[in-house]
This record gives sequence, structure tokens and C-alpha cells, in this order.
Amino acid sequence: MAKKKKPALSARAGALPASPIRKLVPLADGAKKRGVHVYHLNIGQPDVPSPEAFLKAVREYPAKVIAYGRSEGELPLREAYCEYYGRFGIELSPDEILVTTGGSEALLFAFFCVAGVGDEILVFEPFYTNYTGFAALVGVTLKPLATEPVTGYHLPPREVVEAAVGPKTRAIAICNPNNPTGTVYGEDELNMIAELAGKHDLFIIADEVYREFVYDGPDHTSMLSIPAVAERVVVTDSLSKRFNVCGARIGCLVSRNADVVAAALKLGQARLSPPVVEEYAATAALKMSPEEYVHPMIEHFKRRRDVVHDALTKMPGVVAYKPAGAFYITPEFPVDDAEKFISWMLTDFALDGETTMLAPAAGFYSTPGLGLREARIAYVLNEDELTRAMACLAEGLNRYPGRIS
Amino acid sequence: MAKKKKPALSARAGALPASPIRKLVPLADGAKKRGVHVYHLNIGQPDVPSPEAFLKAVREYPAKVIAYGRSEGELPLREAYCEYYGRFGIELSPDEILVTTGGSEALLFAFFCVAGVGDEILVFEPFYTNYTGFAALVGVTLKPLATEPVTGYHLPPREVVEAAVGPKTRAIAICNPNNPTGTVYGEDELNMIAELAGKHDLFIIADEVYREFVYDGPDHTSMLSIPAVAERVVVTDSLSKRFNVCGARIGCLVSRNADVVAAALKLGQARLSPPVVEEYAATAALKMSPEEYVHPMIEHFKRRRDVVHDALTKMPGVVAYKPAGAFYITPEFPVDDAEKFISWMLTDFALDGETTMLAPAAGFYSTPGLGLREARIAYVLNEDELTRAMACLAEGLNRYPGRIS
Repeated sequence: MAKKKKPALSARAGALPASPIRKLVPLADGAKKRGVHVYHLNIGQPDVPSPEAFLKAVREYPAKVIAYGRSEGELPLREAYCEYYGRFGIELSPDEILVTTGGSEALLFAFFCVAGVGDEILVFEPFYTNYTGFAALVGVTLKPLATEPVTGYHLPPREVVEAAVGPKTRAIAICNPNNPTGTVYGEDELNMIAELAGKHDLFIIADEVYREFVYDGPDHTSMLSIPAVAERVVVTDSLSKRFNVCGARIGCLVSRNADVVAAALKLGQARLSPPVVEEYAATAALKMSPEEYVHPMIEHFKRRRDVVHDALTKMPGVVAYKPAGAFYITPEFPVDDAEKFISWMLTDFALDGETTMLAPAAGFYSTPGLGLREARIAYVLNEDELTRAMACLAEGLNRYPGRIS
Repeated sequence: MAKKKKPALSARAGALPASPIRKLVPLADGAKKRGVHVYHLNIGQPDVPSPEAFLKAVREYPAKVIAYGRSEGELPLREAYCEYYGRFGIELSPDEILVTTGGSEALLFAFFCVAGVGDEILVFEPFYTNYTGFAALVGVTLKPLATEPVTGYHLPPREVVEAAVGPKTRAIAICNPNNPTGTVYGEDELNMIAELAGKHDLFIIADEVYREFVYDGPDHTSMLSIPAVAERVVVTDSLSKRFNVCGARIGCLVSRNADVVAAALKLGQARLSPPVVEEYAATAALKMSPEEYVHPMIEHFKRRRDVVHDALTKMPGVVAYKPAGAFYITPEFPVDDAEKFISWMLTDFALDGETTMLAPAAGFYSTPGLGLREARIAYVLNEDELTRAMACLAEGLNRYPGRIS
């Protein structure tokens, strides 16, 4: 027998799924090589410029040594976060905020702190696909509870959620406004989660990255606003979307439970500090008034939402609820398989030299077989581009050989 | 019974140790409040300015949207890394390099990819304390093999290392040059590790962050230079030390094992991308010739090493081997307990209004009871400051009530 040269990966590393957002990128590259313009609606990377306050702070970063920052995040940044949360009526002290390297790291730390290896966190599927990677890293099981396009992906009834709570359940995770569905949960839904958490002694992991992205009716309600669960709530947050600084990797973990913040800080000490140039620039961005940047941007996104939603409702067979927040919609399409359809749009279709790339929704579910006819659309382009992208999608659905209704 | 308001952390989160590097910081703050100047030799944060090429690139960061970078790292940066490694005779393609958010993330990804929950990685203690945090995050057990100050912390004999390999062992981790000891391993030691890895089908995790920091005799030998273990080696690297950009959080994972890089990339996709402004600046730093920045800095550190080592050898009862690399030395002190001594230096001692802060070495061991009389000194200050810091240390040892010889 030849001597082995290559040891085997850990089983868990071999089992990691590919990102549903990025897995079809080679097909998009192929389309571009053929001269086809691809509207990228597969990834939540908006086209909007970052705030000048952020860019200016980067240019003017004052230190001559790019030294380690504090593991909990620089104090001026945590103070700016307090000011920011205060605008939503949420009073926090800097000690309740741990700055993280993106919302990603906040999720990773939160999962580890609330659940042990083999413990369960309830999630509503479809859910932000990267939860899967963070859960795998820390050995936590995500227990999915399905939601559906016909109800606009609102939460299942209380008894269904409660029935899913088992002896290994440690937390309920809720992303509000939701990625990938755009759903904004009502106060009744949030209170239901809060009550169940209290009754069954659970944590609540509240991913509120899209807090400002709310288009209809009342503003977003933060889990931090429900006093009964003050010490159960761990909020994971990010500046990526609200300031269009996705590449800056600045987010935070917020909790009024001092044990959680202390444990997360120990993980934070292991990785030393967040990136300090971006921390400095983030401080400037958080100090802007909402009128200066966020509110006008939300108005843009609302018009984009309307362009996409209106177009989808005119496509026969598409189940297109109206998403009230974030910048995503995950419709159900009248096709045999959404991933095949999306691939076909990249390999076999063009309308006036253009096509559209979506993200197959199956990767946002952990239950096999769910979401096979759904796809996530991130409406991150301007209205003209979105109009043309929707025209491609409508015509693609007409021509697609695997259309089923 | 009152209703519970606060759920319990996961047991593993509750068990995380505090950083030995930072745990005595409140005592240092107390000393400063009393007007005592504290020489910080407890943390590897050098005083040297970052390269102008890096700072200039930050100032001139060209994009108007701080967009997500590629999960594997921007191509120009990976190409610059190839050029950099090429200067050491190590030929790599960009596909063999995954840019990470600091060397920290490279370690986290490496641990996950080579070992499952409950699997073991052999480490030589004392070891870089943050390994403990990353191992805890991914549920891997670090199995320690002790090294000692009297041998300059060189590796134990082959039979001792081999005897530690058990059915759950998946990898041997080696940090070369070593943090916290400053030891540079000889080719015989590296070959011993390579042979054992081949014989027992193990990975080798080689932390080579201090590659250039070698002061005596032959240059550093990278594990990437040993062809027999090409597909067993996972190098974790960082720009923090060689360019004094600790706060930039740019590192990389390097492997000629494509499975490892592919699995690590999936973890990388979950966290989306490293911080892009620093990636851009790092590219400029890696393109500098070594003569421009790194070599002169190494000359400085060599003189600093000599100042500290000479002073320590003159302190009666101190076991002070001569470290050949990195910018650390971990001597054994003639005291009852190094942590008590370090604390006492901060609370009860001053020499001309000055004192010195070290890091207790016990936190760099995972075997309880080891390293209790050792402390890590990071010689990250200038020669004058180091001379004064060593004078404080010598006088502190004279006066300390818990001196044992």
C-alpha cells in the first residue's frame, strides 16, 4: 500500500455546505464571458455609496501605529453605539455592547455562549444561510421551524413553536426584519417569542441588522424593548447594511445579561480586537443624524421594493407577498426547481443581452426538500436596473422549459 | 419560587479562562492612578510605527462603496502574499492562500478543519494562550507536552512526543519562532515533527507569525519547505507583527492541501470577507522590499533582545536562556508565584516612580501547576525603556517578600 500523503479533514469540515448565495457565481462568470450583462440580485451588496463621513474618517485615520484595539471595541465606538440605540428609545451602557468583526462574529459568539455542543437553537426557516456555518463551527444544532411564502413568512402559531421546544433547546433565534424573506414581525409575534422564552427559560438571539429597513406601518420593534426578557435577549447587529459598509466588518453583540457579555468578551480577547481603522470610521458613521444618510436611503429602498413587488405580482404563477422590510423578497416561482431555473437563466437565457441572477432559497432552509421552488431576490440595484432585471425574470419564466404552471 | 429571569450560559462559555495577558490590567490602571509609570511588557504590541506604505494606502483607499471583499481574500493581496513567500523560496499559488481576519481566524479555521469535537491537537506548552479560546470555540482538545526554561523550551525527545499520539490525535501544532518563549526550532526538531506526522497520519498546524524575527544563526525554516509533508501542513500567518499592524486584523491560512483550503473557504464564506480597507493596505505592505522595513526592524529587536537577556542573566536566581526569535522571553523567576510577584510589582513597588508589568506564564500552560514561577516578557519597547524596565525588575526581585532563593 502506498504511504498516505494526505490526512482526512474532520468529518464536520467535509460536511460544510457551499454558500447558496455564491455557489452559482461560476455560471454568472460564464454568462459575462459570453457578453451577457448579469443583474446580481443574488447577494445583499447594495450599490449605494458609503457615507462620506465614513470614507473621510478612513482617509484621516490619525494613528501612526495600527495597534491592537480593545477586545470589547474602542470606547468612543461603544459610546456612539449607545447614542445610536438611544435614538430608538433603547438605553444602553457601553458595557452592554461588545464590538464584533461584523455581525457574523456576533452570531458566532452568541451561539457559543447560549448553547453547548449538541444543544439546539430554534430558527425559523428560511433563515440567513450563514447561521449554518456558525452553528457548525461551534457544534450547535439549528432546529428549523418552517414558514411559508403564502403567509408572507410570518411565524407559525404559538403551539407549533412551543411544541418544538425540547430538552436540548437553549434559545430561539429571530431575524427581524428578516433575511431572506423581508418579513417584519409584529409585536404579537415578538411577544409570543418572549413569552415562550420566559416559560421555557430560553435565550432569544435577535438579529436586527436591518432595523431601519421598514417600509410600511409601524417602526421596527427591537427585542431590547421588551423588559420581561431583558436578560434573555442577545442582539446581533451590523453596520454593513445601514451604512453600506459591508466590507468594513463592524458589528456588535448587545445584551443586558452581563454574563453573556463577559463570556463573549473572553472570546473577543482570544481574537484580540476588531479591525481598528474601520472601528474609527464606524464611530463617525454612527454619529450622523438618520436624516443625513439612513432615512433617504430607506426611501430609495422602499421604491425599489415596490418596483420588484409590483413586477412579481404581474408574473403569472408567482407567489409574491409584499415584504415590509430588509431588502429581500423570496417568492415562490412556478418552476420545477428554482436552482435549475436560476442556472438556466445564466446559461441559456438572455433578453436584449441581459439576464438576472437570484439565490436559490433551498440553501436558506435546513429541512431537505423545502424551498425548492423559491429564490431570494436582493433588490440592491437602482430602479431602472431592477425594472430591466424584472423584465428578464418575467420573460425567463415564460421561456423556461421546466415551468410547471 | 421566583420566576427565573436569567438563563444560564452554556457550560463551555462559563468555563472560558480570562486572558493571562490582560487579566492584571486593572492593577496596572491602579498603579497609573497613583502616578507610577508602568512599562508594559505583558502584551506583544510593539511601539514601532506601521510602514508608511500601509498608512498611505489607508489614506488613499479608492472605493466609494466599502463593499464585501472576496471570501478568500482579494486577489491582489493573495498575489502579493505569493510574492512575499517567494522571497523565502516558498512557491505558492493564490489558490493555496486564504486571507483571514488576523492570524486568529486562521487558527480557528485550521483547528476546525483538521479536528472534530473531542479530537486532540498536540501542543507544546507553554503555548500562545489564545489557542485555548479557539480550541474551546470549536470543541477541540489541546493535549499539552511540556517544555522547560532550562532547555530554552526546545522540544521534548521524539519518543516523548510519539508517546503522546493517541487514537484521537489529529494534528501537531507548532509555533515557530515561538510565542511565548522566543524559541526557534532547529531543522532536526521540525523533521522530527514531520516524520511523526507522516507515520501517524497527522496534520501539522504551523504558526509562523514571527517568521522574520530570528536573531542568531540560520534563518527560520518554514514547515512549507518540507516536501514530505506538503499536504499535511496548514500554516497560520499574520501581518500583525512583521508590519506592526496588530489592529489591522489581516492574516492568512496557507496549505497545499486543497481540501483544507476549500473547507476553510466555506467557513470564510459564512463570515463573508476580511476587512477590505486593511486588505488593500496590506497589499501595499507586502510589496515592500524587506530592506525597506522588516530587516531594520529586526535589527532593533535583536538589540532589544540583547538588553533584556543580558539584564536577566545578571539577576540572581533567574533562569534566562537566550531566545533566538520572536520578541518574547519567558524566564523562570526565584519567586513563590509569578502572578503574585507581577501583581505586587503593580500594587506595592516602584523604583523612581516606575514599575514593570509582565504576563504570568501559567496562563500559557494548560497543565495545572506548570509555569507558576515563569512570566512572559514582550520586549516591545525601546532600549532605554527596556533598560529601565529591567532595573525595576531586578530591584523588584530584591525587595519582593515572596522571593524563594
